[in-house]
Amino acid sequence: MPEPSTETRAVSNGTGVSSNAGNGQRNALNDFVHPMGVEAYRKTAKDLIDWICDYYARVESLPVRSEAEPGYLPPMLPTEAPDAPESADAVLSDIQSKIMPGLTHWQSPNFFAYFPANSSFPAMLGDMLSGALSVMGFLWSGSPAATELETVVLDWLAKLLNLPACFLAFGPDMKLGKGGGIIQGTASETVLVALLAAQARAMASRPAEDRQYLVCYSSDQAHSSIKKACMVAGTPHCRLIPARPELDYALDPDDLTAAIDADLAAGLIPFYLVGTIGTTSSCAVDPIAKLGAIARRHDMWFHIDAAFAGVTAMLPEMQHYFQGLELADSFNTNAHKWLLTNFDCSCMWVQDADPLKAALSLTPAFLRAKGNAYDYKDWQIPLGRRFRSLKLFFMLRMYGKQKLQEYLRHHIALGDLVADLVRHDSRFEIVTPPRFALTCFCLKAQTGKETAALVDAVNRSGKAFMITTELSGRCVARFAIGGAQTQERHIRAAWQLISQLADKVLAETEGARP
Amino acid sequence: MPEPSTETRAVSNGTGVSSNAGNGQRNALNDFVHPMGVEAYRKTAKDLIDWICDYYARVESLPVRSEAEPGYLPPMLPTEAPDAPESADAVLSDIQSKIMPGLTHWQSPNFFAYFPANSSFPAMLGDMLSGALSVMGFLWSGSPAATELETVVLDWLAKLLNLPACFLAFGPDMKLGKGGGIIQGTASETVLVALLAAQARAMASRPAEDRQYLVCYSSDQAHSSIKKACMVAGTPHCRLIPARPELDYALDPDDLTAAIDADLAAGLIPFYLVGTIGTTSSCAVDPIAKLGAIARRHDMWFHIDAAFAGVTAMLPEMQHYFQGLELADSFNTNAHKWLLTNFDCSCMWVQDADPLKAALSLTPAFLRAKGNAYDYKDWQIPLGRRFRSLKLFFMLRMYGKQKLQEYLRHHIALGDLVADLVRHDSRFEIVTPPRFALTCFCLKAQTGKETAALVDAVNRSGKAFMITTELSGRCVARFAIGGAQTQERHIRAAWQLISQLADKVLAETEGARP
Repeated sequence: MPEPSTETRAVSNGTGVSSNAGNGQRNALNDFVHPMGVEAYRKTAKDLIDWICDYYARVESLPVRSEAEPGYLPPMLPTEAPDAPESADAVLSDIQSKIMPGLTHWQSPNFFAYFPANSSFPAMLGDMLSGALSVMGFLWSGSPAATELETVVLDWLAKLLNLPACFLAFGPDMKLGKGGGIIQGTASETVLVALLAAQARAMASRPAEDRQYLVCYSSDQAHSSIKKACMVAGTPHCRLIPARPELDYALDPDDLTAAIDADLAAGLIPFYLVGTIGTTSSCAVDPIAKLGAIARRHDMWFHIDAAFAGVTAMLPEMQHYFQGLELADSFNTNAHKWLLTNFDCSCMWVQDADPLKAALSLTPAFLRAKGNAYDYKDWQIPLGRRFRSLKLFFMLRMYGKQKLQEYLRHHIALGDLVADLVRHDSRFEIVTPPRFALTCFCLKAQTGKETAALVDAVNRSGKAFMITTELSGRCVARFAIGGAQTQERHIRAAWQLISQLADKVLAETEGARP
Repeated sequence: MPEPSTETRAVSNGTGVSSNAGNGQRNALNDFVHPMGVEAYRKTAKDLIDWICDYYARVESLPVRSEAEPGYLPPMLPTEAPDAPESADAVLSDIQSKIMPGLTHWQSPNFFAYFPANSSFPAMLGDMLSGALSVMGFLWSGSPAATELETVVLDWLAKLLNLPACFLAFGPDMKLGKGGGIIQGTASETVLVALLAAQARAMASRPAEDRQYLVCYSSDQAHSSIKKACMVAGTPHCRLIPARPELDYALDPDDLTAAIDADLAAGLIPFYLVGTIGTTSSCAVDPIAKLGAIARRHDMWFHIDAAFAGVTAMLPEMQHYFQGLELADSFNTNAHKWLLTNFDCSCMWVQDADPLKAALSLTPAFLRAKGNAYDYKDWQIPLGRRFRSLKLFFMLRMYGKQKLQEYLRHHIALGDLVADLVRHDSRFEIVTPPRFALTCFCLKAQTGKETAALVDAVNRSGKAFMITTELSGRCVARFAIGGAQTQERHIRAAWQLISQLADKVLAETEGARP
């Protein structure tokens, strides 16, 4: 039994090395042998590819939302990791029997909740490659290709999205400029690092105690990550200005100006404004050019959060939403939402990265190395970073501009279909004009409980999954389109389901009346 | 030419839908067809698996550090994404010819720089599955299995690491308690969220203006992410207390006490202490039990950063480094460094998650849903989150405790071999006692330039890659072991290389003297 005796010796002197070592003349160590070698991996990984293909073929037929109850999983699993290696088959069998029932299938074509979390086969190839290479891209020198490919593909995407040239890393002379793009993990991180850059810029010419006077602004329809960013950074004043229902839940520039004027009169310092193109609740669009002008007037950092809808900037017919982008200091859209790139891939562009670096750059001795202007660790919160641009590289090349435009237009047309179906059913009303591919609606003349009950019934059916939100205090159903596999037949089937369940919910409401 | 005419119509009314729509009686939309369908993916993905297997077979023979010069890649690539879809072959061919030369091979057995970034085949299987399922785990209800598996496997890992029971999520009765584990992206994020929790706890009973008096402490050998966390959170006072060379670069508890006493006398509020087990420069270990006692005395949040070395807590012979863990409020080790789990997988445990939630929890209307105590969005900065526990689940089961212990012991023995080789070569000296699998050494009686020149020569050879750091102002070579494929022969070859190049560097130094 050589194994136990080796271990005993290792324990005995606390180093794992026999004590007669010296001058490199010690006994040779046994090679470490991994339980899964390359040939076993080759076979199992290919089997898993088959499983994945099968999953995509059948995901449509699975209940969209998991019906698992809280705490369903722990009793099905051991309370400790095993002592000895288990086979891949044993693990995969547990995936099938124990994990699958607890999944809500975000890749189902019948998933209409939240915003989509797009996957695509090209992005999955890039992601698989990234996982296998497993290089770190925090410093240019840690893996030059990881940094340089990211800079290149974010320029590609910026051009595809018709972003102003001020957001490109490379000038016409192919020299690196002051700005460019970076892949962050999430829009929440993007909103936070933009806030930190805004703060660094505002405080550069002010005494440290002025920090307590800084004010951040957005509409109350903007993403919760803005308030969270203020909590994290300790920003003392966060004004979430009520959006106007009569402006389809956009921020009224006059309301913003009034808030800024009041704050200035009180001796406060406006420093950060977030405008949203496509709010989470209802896809409202703030008036970007007007907000940008206000931001410029007060020397505030202007960030545009277009996490979901920003990708539609590649469509000529959507350009009116994106007028004024050149007034923004930073812009964000998540390729992992509606652009066929698996999570995480939140694309951020800045006109000038210096304030970002002022807020986030630190270079200890062990990280001093040759590099270029782009050490992405200085543009983000984490130090480590995965080679995420690979999945974007695969996706952009294997789709190409025309297919991507067609893809988004297809969803937008499906969204219009949903809006039409709602409008032509007298039991329902549209709550705010549908935008991009999101429709917010509710049952007419009801308290809101009925709409909540309807959505709950839809979700319990397993045939579709959507969520509710609140607009002007009212519970509203959100039908969000953008799943990579969603086609017209899924929309029509979902609407038939909603329609039938609405009859039931309304009948129950009627029956419950005294 | 049906495609252009469709597009023209789409542009004409700005919605992508023909204008005679109404009542769901509109013309049917064409299904969107992805350029890569499931069968093409099946074939290409399997080819990529073969490529990956081949890569692991040959990575040993590749130059470890990329010799690319800054800006090498952009001229090799187009300046825009293509209009039409390209084939997977075209992309993979560019990976081979353009990306590979710009990679530093972190999975090479000859990579001895930074700390390792372990990959393993089981973790790659889990990661591939996670990418394919592409579910979001921010809310329990968003995919119950994603949340529950994370809680379970972090309990498994906590037990494997002999963490005190106070860090487990599940009590002996299998009921969820107040604490438990979470996978963060990086140790930097972990240090930051622990700081925010510390701040929330400290400020719960204090007026808001006291925030300006908060003081954070660590040694100056602790990771740069602590200072960065203070920059992000706006923590006004960050004391990086010089570690003691005579204590092998550990923090002296008396120095800490003196700093705290001085701060208290000045009216400041000590609130956050970070102890390190295995510093980045030299793997120094702070005296955890003593620091913990000081933290308790002053009601400070005590975080232990064991990003690299924490995994050795699974070895009985390493227990002396981990005494006093029960005095910590939070503990972190990165499975993506030395535990065979591909990036990102930074494992964090807290005794009590309430202060974390107080700092980070926000639940807007669109996220209100049934759940359990563990909505991980409230434990982290981002909202979105990938199903990262799958890779840990595969890794832990397919290795098992004994193999993981054998794995770490193998590296520790290789580290001891390096230290022996240095000690028996009169040209070199060990700078501080080697720990875990890291040896810091330099050329004796030289200015430090020679050691830097030696490391540079090693790296330029392409046969090994290591970095330098600074200890007591001296440039020191760091030989870090932990690559998943590293065996004794790689260590011996690297040492032979170092030895030969040292002759050369010393001869040049000699020759350069007047």
